[in-house]
Amino acid sequence: MARKHAPKRRGDRGIEGRPRLWGRHAAFAALDNPARTVRKLWVTSELKSQLVIDPDWAIVVAEAADLGRMVPNDAPHQGIVVEVDPLDDLYLADVLAGDPTGPIVVLDQVTDPHNVGAILRSAAAFDAAALVTQDRHSPPEGGTVARAASGALEVVPWIRVVNLARALDELAEAGYWRIGLDGAAELTLADAAGPAKVALVLGAEGEGMRPNTAAHCDAIARLPIGGKVESLNVSNAAAIALYAIANPG
Amino acid sequence: MARKHAPKRRGDRGIEGRPRLWGRHAAFAALDNPARTVRKLWVTSELKSQLVIDPDWAIVVAEAADLGRMVPNDAPHQGIVVEVDPLDDLYLADVLAGDPTGPIVVLDQVTDPHNVGAILRSAAAFDAAALVTQDRHSPPEGGTVARAASGALEVVPWIRVVNLARALDELAEAGYWRIGLDGAAELTLADAAGPAKVALVLGAEGEGMRPNTAAHCDAIARLPIGGKVESLNVSNAAAIALYAIANPG
Repeated sequence: MARKHAPKRRGDRGIEGRPRLWGRHAAFAALDNPARTVRKLWVTSELKSQLVIDPDWAIVVAEAADLGRMVPNDAPHQGIVVEVDPLDDLYLADVLAGDPTGPIVVLDQVTDPHNVGAILRSAAAFDAAALVTQDRHSPPEGGTVARAASGALEVVPWIRVVNLARALDELAEAGYWRIGLDGAAELTLADAAGPAKVALVLGAEGEGMRPNTAAHCDAIARLPIGGKVESLNVSNAAAIALYAIANPG
Repeated sequence: MARKHAPKRRGDRGIEGRPRLWGRHAAFAALDNPARTVRKLWVTSELKSQLVIDPDWAIVVAEAADLGRMVPNDAPHQGIVVEVDPLDDLYLADVLAGDPTGPIVVLDQVTDPHNVGAILRSAAAFDAAALVTQDRHSPPEGGTVARAASGALEVVPWIRVVNLARALDELAEAGYWRIGLDGAAELTLADAAGPAKVALVLGAEGEGMRPNTAAHCDAIARLPIGGKVESLNVSNAAAIALYAIANPG
């Protein structure tokens, strides 16, 4: 027998491919974001009593087990699932026109949504001005990214571009010093960073940056790690690099 | 019809609860570790041709799809699955008796295996002397931890203790300065760290350290993040802290 009110599709995209977000940090940040259109909200009755309800929201009170059936395996929904419209497309030129001060993180083919979400979270923590990814080689705006971002999906401008090399050209024109991270580089990040604003470029784990991406960097640098492992997890590398840029020695 | 050679159980523990490891970095590191007993090895024929085979290994050549059925959902096995014996129990006193120089990472109730694995990887990258967790509140030695650790499970001593407060006492007696990370602390980590060897203590996300764990620290410190998110992912916080300790300003 079909259950009332609980949609049958499970995943991090819901009806008509809309982003489906879960977990309190991710969901509350979406509800708080004036730029976000909320289509439908499923909450447990317990959690509903804690929310300040916007009369425009379509709310369904559901059992925790029903919410569990809406999200990917074992995902901790914490009593709330929200279906939203994707955020409006952002353009790099518009963000740069605002003359932002923080670093900009550029990801080349980082496709794992947990990593991209964790990088958004660190980008927010260290006041990065934007995340830039190539649209074709990045995860969709969905619940897995949002959950890992812990609210940062709503506060860090995420710019999806068609051509990453062109975006790197634009960053150079705007005065950014483009540092590509590569474990085999001679320079350390601390040596490569200077007074200019930094665009931090990271490639996928294993593969690293594509050659044409690296060719569009002003410096290639590594994090100072020992020889016991080949590399760091990409979100950990991004976190360290953002910290190091914000806290020069 | 039952498939030949492919075990039916799926998960990161295999026959008799033995750790089941997958992915090239994790599996190759286990095969290279003289302290590791390999019980059985499933590989694709393509990957087998690239391995230097130990005659003691029980090898089964399998199709990639069969390997896919041995691991948790969507886990990237990369053509290899290994069942191993758990590593021998390690004792903090034995590690301290070797007078190690690197920091020691202590985790209080961090249960997510991806986070614990990523922390092992960063611990290896920054030459940490050991990871200490409370046995009851940490993930088992299994494929998910090993995969996230990308080989570091085999090289970083992982000490599982019954009583974390007692382990922190032992660390103090051995001359470690115990710094607990807490986003609400007044001191930054850079201010709290000094010339002494550091034991870095991290609690679970959201909950943080338990009060009795914090009471067994010499200093409570925070990472210098802005106000856009409440906190960092715990593995990212550990990575930044290990970097900051290894690279004082």
